[in-house]
Amino acid sequence: MSVLVVGSVAFDSVETPLGRVNEVLGGSASYFSLAARFFTLVQMVAVVGEDFPEENLDMFRKFNINIQGLQRVEGKTFRWQGKYGTALNEAKTLNTELNVFENFRPEIPDSYQNTDFVFLGNIDPLLQKQVVAQMKSPKLVICDTMNYWIESRLPELREVLKLVDILIINDGEARMLTDEHNLNVAAKKIIEWGPRVLVVKKGEYGVSMYDSKSIFSAPAYPLCAVLDPTGAGDSFAGGFVGFLAKSGEINNQTLRRAVIYGSVLASFNVEEFSLNRLISLKYSEIEERFLQFKQLTEF
Amino acid sequence: MSVLVVGSVAFDSVETPLGRVNEVLGGSASYFSLAARFFTLVQMVAVVGEDFPEENLDMFRKFNINIQGLQRVEGKTFRWQGKYGTALNEAKTLNTELNVFENFRPEIPDSYQNTDFVFLGNIDPLLQKQVVAQMKSPKLVICDTMNYWIESRLPELREVLKLVDILIINDGEARMLTDEHNLNVAAKKIIEWGPRVLVVKKGEYGVSMYDSKSIFSAPAYPLCAVLDPTGAGDSFAGGFVGFLAKSGEINNQTLRRAVIYGSVLASFNVEEFSLNRLISLKYSEIEERFLQFKQLTEF
Repeated sequence: MSVLVVGSVAFDSVETPLGRVNEVLGGSASYFSLAARFFTLVQMVAVVGEDFPEENLDMFRKFNINIQGLQRVEGKTFRWQGKYGTALNEAKTLNTELNVFENFRPEIPDSYQNTDFVFLGNIDPLLQKQVVAQMKSPKLVICDTMNYWIESRLPELREVLKLVDILIINDGEARMLTDEHNLNVAAKKIIEWGPRVLVVKKGEYGVSMYDSKSIFSAPAYPLCAVLDPTGAGDSFAGGFVGFLAKSGEINNQTLRRAVIYGSVLASFNVEEFSLNRLISLKYSEIEERFLQFKQLTEF
Repeated sequence: MSVLVVGSVAFDSVETPLGRVNEVLGGSASYFSLAARFFTLVQMVAVVGEDFPEENLDMFRKFNINIQGLQRVEGKTFRWQGKYGTALNEAKTLNTELNVFENFRPEIPDSYQNTDFVFLGNIDPLLQKQVVAQMKSPKLVICDTMNYWIESRLPELREVLKLVDILIINDGEARMLTDEHNLNVAAKKIIEWGPRVLVVKKGEYGVSMYDSKSIFSAPAYPLCAVLDPTGAGDSFAGGFVGFLAKSGEINNQTLRRAVIYGSVLASFNVEEFSLNRLISLKYSEIEERFLQFKQLTEF
């Protein structure tokens, strides 16, 4: 089954303790798609400006990413500039130029409207709601968000939570969203608000997944060097949703495996800057690291 | 096989967001012993003052904890006063009265000197070294330490690391000890310094165990309320070392299971103040929670 993603396509300028890059391809929809493409066909809904090079479009096409829903409009592509400190867990935003992203109104092409799996990348909850409204009968809606929307659009975000099956956020966002320090208490609250599954990303400490009856916890893959954490969350989501779409069946076991595939994709992504590692990655490497997660956790 | 523990016995006054207690029984040797006693005979080496009530000694004896090595000397028992904030991960020390602990010189009774498993609780590395010197031919030496000793006794601590098989510390201590932010890099360094196994406790994020060839990661048991984190590390160590002593055999599988038993004991300990939960705990509850760890991590 195929996956639809709505999110950003951007040019990122990033500095980390191990290097820096200038105006490289990024954005939530890019990271998600390049991770999910290992498992399923991806349909991308996003917007870029006139400055977006044809070679990037070719790259998406080459990886079987359907870009019929990628609008190309007058103006410049979204640009983001950020810097990570030693802890690598959160970027300091140095500059944001929304450009064409400012007036982005996601339009779902007719050919996308029957898609079973829908990933709502980290955009304005009002737009996330509009996307869901355009879908015919999605089997699974998965949603991301961030502190900015929790602070500025809480009522709208709470509305979106009623429409989604799975929410994927990080631990800080889960605490902020619920005003609860204890993650297990926060998770219970969020599940009462709508999503039947909550996935909490904890950076180097791994991922916990909650539903009303059970909890699953997985460590992060132990890396000795993280070159660039940008896109870790979106490549996690790409592996997670991509694997679910490939399985077709949504149950506790496929959800747990999806968390591991998400963790595998995120761990590869941070090994290089921009989308470079996701581009060079081979499926056999994914399977190998999946097995390493078994060795990492079995007792 | 039995276990020898050297550490503190203290009276703690603790304040957490969920309550407070005044001058209750605590100390590393107390927490360790009450956790390890579910698996093995425990021999305690510590010191208390004249004010230490007979009923506490009776409690230790009742749980098969051998207190022949517990010195009772002139003066007052060690007192510690601390407070935890919402994050619960680190206590702020409000007051320390070392009292009889100031001149503590661990003397290992003859009957203890052939003990196979030795746990060096968090005391001055100089004393830890003296303890090892008094043992005949221990099968396994396990060591704890803290930021205070890393800052004030680094050369002595590095000497101790050459004598121990397993070091158990928390993530902040591992970073401080090596001056490395990345825990996987820090772990490699520490293993080169002596211990063949390193156990890193990460509070609510669980535990990682490293040896020269492999890594094992386990989540923390998901609790919705932590009443008092005091003694979590020592009850972890008690479960960990206790289980190893019970198994007799030290291999990758028993070490991994020991991490889970340690996590189980720590998770019970923080459910109540002081040693209360370790005192009321039943072995069947430990086994039940061990199985819950399977459900929490399997995929």
